[in-house]
Formats: sequence, structure tokens, C-alpha cells
Amino acid sequence: MNPSNSRHGTGITLRELAERCGADLAGDGELMIYRVATLEDADAKSISFLSNARYRTQLASTRAGAVIVAPRDADATPLPKLLSNNPYAVYARVATIFHPPAVAVPGVHATAIIAATAKVAASATIGPNVVVGHRASVGERARIHTGCVVGDDCSVGDDVTLYPRVVLYANSVLGPRTIVHSGAVIGADGFGMAELDGRWLKVPQIGRAVIGADVEIGANTTIDRGALGDTVVEDDVKLDNQIQIGHNCRIGAHTAIAGCVGIAGSTTIGRNCKIGGAAMIIGHLDIVDGTTISAITGVYESIRTAGVYTSAFPTLPHREWQYVAAILRKLRSFAKRVRALERVLQIKADEKGE
Amino acid sequence: MNPSNSRHGTGITLRELAERCGADLAGDGELMIYRVATLEDADAKSISFLSNARYRTQLASTRAGAVIVAPRDADATPLPKLLSNNPYAVYARVATIFHPPAVAVPGVHATAIIAATAKVAASATIGPNVVVGHRASVGERARIHTGCVVGDDCSVGDDVTLYPRVVLYANSVLGPRTIVHSGAVIGADGFGMAELDGRWLKVPQIGRAVIGADVEIGANTTIDRGALGDTVVEDDVKLDNQIQIGHNCRIGAHTAIAGCVGIAGSTTIGRNCKIGGAAMIIGHLDIVDGTTISAITGVYESIRTAGVYTSAFPTLPHREWQYVAAILRKLRSFAKRVRALERVLQIKADEKGE
Amino acid sequence: MNPSNSRHGTGITLRELAERCGADLAGDGELMIYRVATLEDADAKSISFLSNARYRTQLASTRAGAVIVAPRDADATPLPKLLSNNPYAVYARVATIFHPPAVAVPGVHATAIIAATAKVAASATIGPNVVVGHRASVGERARIHTGCVVGDDCSVGDDVTLYPRVVLYANSVLGPRTIVHSGAVIGADGFGMAELDGRWLKVPQIGRAVIGADVEIGANTTIDRGALGDTVVEDDVKLDNQIQIGHNCRIGAHTAIAGCVGIAGSTTIGRNCKIGGAAMIIGHLDIVDGTTISAITGVYESIRTAGVYTSAFPTLPHREWQYVAAILRKLRSFAKRVRALERVLQIKADEKGE
Repeated sequence: MNPSNSRHGTGITLRELAERCGADLAGDGELMIYRVATLEDADAKSISFLSNARYRTQLASTRAGAVIVAPRDADATPLPKLLSNNPYAVYARVATIFHPPAVAVPGVHATAIIAATAKVAASATIGPNVVVGHRASVGERARIHTGCVVGDDCSVGDDVTLYPRVVLYANSVLGPRTIVHSGAVIGADGFGMAELDGRWLKVPQIGRAVIGADVEIGANTTIDRGALGDTVVEDDVKLDNQIQIGHNCRIGAHTAIAGCVGIAGSTTIGRNCKIGGAAMIIGHLDIVDGTTISAITGVYESIRTAGVYTSAFPTLPHREWQYVAAILRKLRSFAKRVRALERVLQIKADEKGE
Repeated sequence: MNPSNSRHGTGITLRELAERCGADLAGDGELMIYRVATLEDADAKSISFLSNARYRTQLASTRAGAVIVAPRDADATPLPKLLSNNPYAVYARVATIFHPPAVAVPGVHATAIIAATAKVAASATIGPNVVVGHRASVGERARIHTGCVVGDDCSVGDDVTLYPRVVLYANSVLGPRTIVHSGAVIGADGFGMAELDGRWLKVPQIGRAVIGADVEIGANTTIDRGALGDTVVEDDVKLDNQIQIGHNCRIGAHTAIAGCVGIAGSTTIGRNCKIGGAAMIIGHLDIVDGTTISAITGVYESIRTAGVYTSAFPTLPHREWQYVAAILRKLRSFAKRVRALERVLQIKADEKGE
Repeated sequence: MNPSNSRHGTGITLRELAERCGADLAGDGELMIYRVATLEDADAKSISFLSNARYRTQLASTRAGAVIVAPRDADATPLPKLLSNNPYAVYARVATIFHPPAVAVPGVHATAIIAATAKVAASATIGPNVVVGHRASVGERARIHTGCVVGDDCSVGDDVTLYPRVVLYANSVLGPRTIVHSGAVIGADGFGMAELDGRWLKVPQIGRAVIGADVEIGANTTIDRGALGDTVVEDDVKLDNQIQIGHNCRIGAHTAIAGCVGIAGSTTIGRNCKIGGAAMIIGHLDIVDGTTISAITGVYESIRTAGVYTSAFPTLPHREWQYVAAILRKLRSFAKRVRALERVLQIKADEKGE
């Protein structure tokens, strides 16, 4: 870790951290904390945390000055500590205290190009080479970093952050506090064309991309505008990098989607879903609230019952995989053979396997 | 849908739409239509359409003023209608009438940087912060939006549209009417390196990316230049977002490829193929004309016979998947057990499964 | 191939190529070579090469003036030749002679915006609209092309090339000679958030992205900064396009990763690994040195033994796939049926399959 990341030269007492972060204090509340660190890298001036059982063995050996742990782990270390049933959330707050967002100076950079009809809040920060289109609006304290393009008629909410080189196509809407990382493209045309005499006829994509409040959108993620209605990403949705969301999808509030996921057009994802990395979901499906899709899982049918769904092929040493794949290819004749065996033995199969 | 999307305050008669869009009129031809809308969202001033049987139940309940349907669905609604065997293509034309492309004012923005040796047509529109390299050419009526980079010696055809932040590496060629969406990168180096003493030696990538006419390339899609010969995307190919096409691929005319597809180097895709989202195709293959690859399908061998090909693992509740995956891992010993049963019963297997 | 790519109007003798590229000469050393070409496209002024057995049949019919081949292929052609056990590496060197990197003129473009506290080497080339942040450093002879963003406190090594529109978030580090292609985003926030009362709380991402020497990073690839420690890409790692590397990953030296690969957070990939295109690796794993992961393979567990690993589902004609998938879905009951058969026949299964 870059030691210069530490921004609190003067330190904060463990007691103050407990109070500001909603945790219980155990041990020396006057201990001064100067930074956050992993269990492995921490020193006596650091506070660390345990939220993943995978790293529990590091708790005994850490050199941290204090730790954030769940009550069930309190006895596993003699260190001064912050106790919480949600140590990761407490860590998030502590880390935010030591690493507050950089302060932005409001104003429009001399090289930014703002349409005369655009409305940019005086408290917003507009970086170099940004272009804001006709009739677009940018809210209070928004930060539009270098080289972003805010298309005509876009609405960018208060406290939005666009990292460098985000593109918002015309008519896109971003709710307050939403964060969009570099290279993301919001509101590009959906993939819509009609087949006609062996050629393709472009279908105008005239809906919008409407993004709610408190959404985070990862680097190089793409969210297409609607074909006719809108593509909607509801409040507090979290999208990792390199995700593709097709036209007319709706992603329910509080849903989190990990990197490299693709969601084809007109699919609706419910609220509070968790979708693992590289999952791929075909179009025109409905996924019910509270569904978990495992990483690297394809989804081909609507999911009506919340639960965990998986479709991964096991990883095998290549030679072993060759055998398995060969059998898999002829699984149909294989099933017939088992049926034949059952017939010979006059067994009535419980279920038809062929 | 954003109602302000409607651009025809004065309306058009249903008869005129029928004539201009090549459909048969049934019902009141004097009905005034002001916009397009989905069956669900339409009002009496809207025309809607039915092209996907999935939405047929909405036909009975729509509040649309008129609809576009196939003759077989004509009796399913009493509304005035446009009839066509290809209602989606008629819809595409109708929608284009109500949503014509924005008019561009020809000219070069003051912040654009055009090399002295570049040739930019006087009818082209060059946006802010665009950079056009040495000896590059930009055709008539082309629209190069904010922040695009047209590399040295590139050729950009007539009526091309580059949305903001497209990069064309040097020597790339784009045919007329081709559309490239934001964040796409055309002509970056292919992934070529020689292994030498445990290190990698870069192999110069000296071919070009050559894109035909009427191609559409989605947001954040990447098409590498050729290693030695060219990477070629033929006319009327349609590429969705976040597609990766490796060096020396050739994509045949009229082929459509959905989002998140990867095609490794030196693979040739035939004409009129349809490749579903997130399909992945390894390198050095030949896929015959007219092939359909299902979504989320891996392709490991050349395809010589047109048809539909699929490789998806079924999606299962996670606990059920655990059982299936465990059996799959030992499918080889499982096959042996069936063979053993057959031996005991002196059955000659039709096909060897082990 | 674009013939104008050839940059050596005057030619080079085959003897000189042999000497400069570490190959043995066989045949007429005075032969003048003017360009490189594929076996298929070559003419008498070209030198071609054979490194992939797939193209061996083209060796007999090529019109090349000379070829680069392995000694075992020497008798397969009467042409003058360069002999090497690593013909592809020799080709790489020959091609580099005919296609040397373009010469850059040092200096800062008038439109670039360099922070007063940044240190840019006088020998570096900074293109149009580049922004270099506070306290950032750019090394000797580095080439920062159009529209790149070098964030605050970044360190860009000597001889680095950033193609147009690369973004380096604050605090990123790039070692010498590293190449980053357009649209890549280095150091964006990792996907870290704590769940709290059904909402998401952002966890500050305060580590760095640290990229070694001689790394190549493909177009639109994303490498997240560390959550707390750093994300590390070691020397001579080669990354193709559209790869996603999550926070706190470590990629070992000399590892090559093909396009569309996703690696979730906190996974460590060893040295000298080869990861095929579209492979997906979940988080918190360790992959041992020298591992090969096949294309389109999911990895769900750590790999402790070097070897080749695969998880691909075979590609089948769709109708056949439907049968196989249906059987696969009930593989569990299928396994029970085989067990039942064994019981009837009083066979003791070698291995439990159910």
C-alpha cells in the first residue's frame, strides 16, 4: 500500500472512531489511530478489520494497533477493538474518515465547452475538455472530470461524479450521488434492427437510459438507451466494470452486479439481487427480487423463486476434461443404454432419463 | 418513454405512413398519427406494433390509435392498422419518420485539430476536440463527434458517424454509412508475441482494420488491426457493444453479433450468420455462411454445416447444481460402471460411452 | 495488407537479416528483401515465415523470395531461408526491422494541460488534449497520445506508450517500456461495498494499481486499484483487450492473458501462466506458476499443480444439445438409477456416483 495514502497525520482516538462509526469500543479508547491497513500490512498506528473468515488466521499475528471485528471474534485477539455485527460496514466508515473524498474547487475549466442553453450549477466542478450539450443540466456539487461528454438534454443530478471520459448520450438521466467510472457509455443505441431481404434495417432507438440515485457504474460498462421505452437502473444499484446492459432492461433497486456481466435486452432484474461476475443473462427474462446468480452462470429462463442459481461446468485437468466432454457429447445414447439395462432387468425407471 | 422524443407535432396520416413504409392499410387512413409507442404505453395519437409473439396479449388491451401487425394477426384487433409480413421492418421505417437523424451543421469545431495533410470533406461535421491525423480522409457528410481520434492514414467514408470518443488507429478504413458508437477502438494492435527464453517478444502488428459499408459497431467494442494481413468486417455487419474481434478475423457480410461476444484471432465468420450474446469463438476457425450460434455458447471447432449450435450448461438451483457437477466430475468412472453392468448382462453397447 | 506499410524502399539483404535477427542463413545471402508478408500474400521481394503447422501446406506454394522456418522444415522448400528453432521470434525481429516504431518528436502539444507540480521529461511526447495531474511524473521518451488522462501522483516510466484515451486514476504506477492501448482504464475503484440495512455502503478504494515493466495492456482493458493494498501486474505480463482485473489481484511476471478474461478480486495468478480468451476466474484464488487455463474456462478453485485446465461444455447442434441438457438436468436421478441397477446385480460400485 502506498503509505502516502494516509491522510490523518494527527490521528484519531479509537473512542472517537467507535462513536462516529456506530461500533462498540473494547480496550484502550485513547489509542491514537492514524490509518487503516490489512491485517497483514498493519502496524501499531493502524486499525485493521476481519470480515472474511478466510483471513481469520491473520488476526492472531497482526501487528495492528486495533481491529474491527464481530463480537464472536472478540476473544480471538487481545488488541483494542471496535465491535460490530457488521465489521465491514464499520470498516467502510472508518476508511472514509481516513480517506475522505478529495475536495473539489467549483468552477468550469477554461477548456470545457458548455452549450449556451445548458444549466450547470455554480457549485459544480467541470474539468478540462468536458463538453455539455444543449439544454443539459448538471446539478449542485457535481464533478464532471476531464473529457466527459454530457449529451444534449441530459440531466445529471446533484453530487454526481463522472470520472474522466464518461459519455452520456442525449437524453440520459442520472440521479443524485451517482458515480460513473471512466470509459462508461450510457445511452448508446440498443442493438435493434429488422431483417429485410437479407439485409439489416436500423430500428431507431428512441428511449432513454434512466439511472437512479446512489448508483455506481464501473469502468467501461455500457448501458444502452431504450428502443422505445426506457432502460432503467434503479436507486442504489451497484455495477462493476465491463458490464453490458441491453436496451429496455430494468435493474431493481439495491441490486449488485459484478464485473463482465452481460444482460440482454428487455430483461428485468428484481430488487436486492446479487449477480456474480461474468454471469450472462439472455433477453426478455424476469428475475425475481432477491435472486442470487453465481459467477460465470448463464441464465436462459426467467427465475420466479428467489434462491441461488448456478450453471458452471466444473474445471478439470484437460485430459480428464477430454474424457468427460466425450461422454457428455453422447450422453443421449448413454441414457438409452441405461434404459436398456433397466428393461433387461425389468426395472421401472423412476424418471425417464432419455 | 420521454414524451419530448416525439418530433412530429403536426402528425402524419395513417395512409401516408402506409405508402411511405410499404405496408397495406386497413381501417381509417385519415387517422392522424403523432408518435410511435409500445403496445403498453401507447395512446390514441400513437401507432404501435406487434412483431414478437411474446407481447400478443397486449394487442387486445392497447390504447394505441393504430397498430402495425402481420396479416395473421389482423383479426386480433379492431384498430386501424398497417399490414405487412414484416411488421418490424415497417415499424423501423415508421419510427425513422418520427425520429429522423438530427440535422448536423457542416464544419470543423474550433477546438478540433486537423493535420495539414488530412482531407476533410466540406460537408462533414467535426466536433470539439477531435483529432484527425496525417493524410487521413473524412468523407462527405461524415459526423465525427466530440473527442474522436482518427489516426494517420485512416480513410473514413461518406456519411459515417463516429459517436464521441471513438479511436481509429492509423491506417484503419471505414466504409460509407458505417456507425461507430462511443468508446469503440478500431485497429489497436492484435495480441501477438513470440515466446523467447521465458519472456515475450512483441510481434509488430502491421495489417489494418478494414470495415465495410453500412456496418454498425457498438459501444466499447474493439476490433484489432491485422498482424500481417488485414482484419476485415464486411458490409452490413452489425456488432453490438463490448465485442472483441481479434487480429486477422474476417466477418462476412450481413452477419449480426450480439453483445459481449469474443472472437479470437484468424477466425473467419461467414455471411448472414447470427451470433448470440456472450458467445465465445476460439481462433483459427471457419464458421460457414448462415450459421446461428446460441447465446453464451463456446465454439471450439470449425462449423462446416449451417445450423444452430449451442453449448450452454443448464442453470440449476445451486444445491441441485452441486449434485450434478459432482457426478459430472466423475462421469468417466460412471461410464465405466454402466459398461460393467452391460458386461454382466452380456449386452453389446450400441455405442461406446467410456 | 496495405502495401504502403512497407517502409524499406531500399531493401535489406537476407544475410544482414540473418545476422541482425540471430538466425542461420541457408541459400542466397545477397537476396534483397523489401517487406514481410504471409505465405499466401508474399511476392518475390517479401520474406515470409512458418511457425504454425496449420499453414504448412502454404509453404510449397508461396511466392515469397525467402522464408523463415525451423530446421525441421528446411527441406520443405527450396527457397533461400533463415533457419531458427524459434522462427516466430525471428519473424518478430525481422518485422520490427521493416516496421520500426514511428519516430516521435519530443514536446508537449499546445492543448495539453500539465499541472505545475507534474514532472514531464523533456524527451517525452505529450499529445493533444492530454491532462497530467498534480505531482505526476512522466519518464524519458514516454509517448502519451491524444486525450490521455494521467491522474494526480501517477508515475509513468521511461519509454512508456499510452495510446489515445487511456485513463490512469490517481496514484497509478507504470513501469518502463509498458504499452497501454486505447480505452484502457487503470486504477478505477474496485467493486467494494458493505451491505447495511438492505443498502450498500461504499468502501473507499485506497490502494493503487501498480504495473511493472514491459507490460502490454490491450484496448478497453480495466485494472482496478487495490481496496487497501495494491493491485499488482508484474513485469512482462501481456494482457489482451477487454480484460477485467479486480482489486488486489496480483498477476505474475511473464504471464499472458488473452481477450475478454475476467479475474475477480484478490486472486493471485502465478508467473509464466497462459490464460485463454474469455476464461473467467473467481476471487480469492491462487493459481500456481506455469498454469495454462484453456479458453472459455471458468475457474472456481485454487490451482496448486501446474498443468492445463479446462471447463468447456461441448458445442452441439441445438437439437442434440437439448437432449443432452435435459439429461444433464436430471443427472442426479440418472446416477441413482445406475446405482439401483448395480444393487439388483449385486455389483459393488468402484466409486459412488450418486
